[in-house]
Amino acid sequence: MSETLRRVAEVIESRKLANGGNPEKSYVSKLFAKGDDAILKKIGEEATETVMAAKDARVSGDKSKVLYECADLWFHSMVLLAQFDLTPQDVLNELARREGLSGLDEKASRKE
Amino acid sequence: MSETLRRVAEVIESRKLANGGNPEKSYVSKLFAKGDDAILKKIGEEATETVMAAKDARVSGDKSKVLYECADLWFHSMVLLAQFDLTPQDVLNELARREGLSGLDEKASRKE
Amino acid sequence: MSETLRRVAEVIESRKLANGGNPEKSYVSKLFAKGDDAILKKIGEEATETVMAAKDARVSGDKSKVLYECADLWFHSMVLLAQFDLTPQDVLNELARREGLSGLDEKASRKE
Amino acid sequence: MSETLRRVAEVIESRKLANGGNPEKSYVSKLFAKGDDAILKKIGEEATETVMAAKDARVSGDKSKVLYECADLWFHSMVLLAQFDLTPQDVLNELARREGLSGLDEKASRKE
Repeated sequence: MSETLRRVAEVIESRKLANGGNPEKSYVSKLFAKGDDAILKKIGEEATETVMAAKDARVSGDKSKVLYECADLWFHSMVLLAQFDLTPQDVLNELARREGLSGLDEKASRKE
Repeated sequence: MSETLRRVAEVIESRKLANGGNPEKSYVSKLFAKGDDAILKKIGEEATETVMAAKDARVSGDKSKVLYECADLWFHSMVLLAQFDLTPQDVLNELARREGLSGLDEKASRKE
Repeated sequence: MSETLRRVAEVIESRKLANGGNPEKSYVSKLFAKGDDAILKKIGEEATETVMAAKDARVSGDKSKVLYECADLWFHSMVLLAQFDLTPQDVLNELARREGLSGLDEKASRKE
Repeated sequence: MSETLRRVAEVIESRKLANGGNPEKSYVSKLFAKGDDAILKKIGEEATETVMAAKDARVSGDKSKVLYECADLWFHSMVLLAQFDLTPQDVLNELARREGLSGLDEKASRKE
């Protein structure tokens, strides 16, 4: 796995309340303290912000906001994975499995 | 970078029309042919499906759908990155930068 | 209630399978046949399309797409209401209740 | 138009800064002061919360949260309409136009 994904996942894991995370000090611990709904709302929010950033980038020519919002989306989906005791490695394995099976995107293997 | 992310990004890149991708044969090429809006709609859809999967997992006890939808969300965000000539490595660099700067989630460094 | 909302709600109600709706002929009946998840995915999709339409309207100066997508969002939320045996009148009553109580948007009465 | 929609739209209109709305006192004025992006983020958030409420309602049997979130979604879409100088009546007219043209949901008239 990417060293960065591993480190980020470790930090997130350490922010769980059961691992000593403190909601007063850590944004991620606060999300864990609030529970599923707070994390899921962030997934929805970050997806919306990614859409807005992409629209803005076509006007401004500055794509850095797309990158920033995409990082936010990945980060919060890693919090969701941790909430379900899943890891980025599980996601990578699933992506690798699809690539092995089907060339990832052959029409026959997907509904649209 | 993760070998899987690199390979998936390569496959996506090869599906661009400029790189010979064929919208008749490839789902990703079809997204590229349709353009920004089709890709952004998928970001919104996959985020919604991730939220639904997480809710379902709490009832069924089966978290495999969360993993599956999260992989879909990452995959389509990689299509969006490619559409803007960005890579997963750029996202990892942004995540690493944040981790280095701030411990990723110190309250002071984030708006909620 | 608005005569239009009443008529639209009636049409939607008549599309339920229990009321003789035919998924082969009616888009709404097909949504009802697929069930909750299909309807909820449409809520997510139409919200994303509304966001995109608003962004586009600021560039093009043409706000008709905002109106169109907003109508789609209301229409599909009426399908969701019907799926839960709720009506637009219930929504209007809730909005009226809030307006009566609080002037709708006094800060004190809302979390942000 | 529904008397309630008319009154709610009037209140929203009165909250515009140009009409004397005060962002310190009114939640809606604060949204108008922040501009398009703040309003669009609320559309995305309320759609996500509607999806979550519907999932929860199937477990709890209590559909009041679906109603509440749907009212929130309509309310914020009315703020968006006002931001574009559109009204709920415009949405109703669009819905009425569709109903007149096509029986609202004939397959032939819709992409899925």
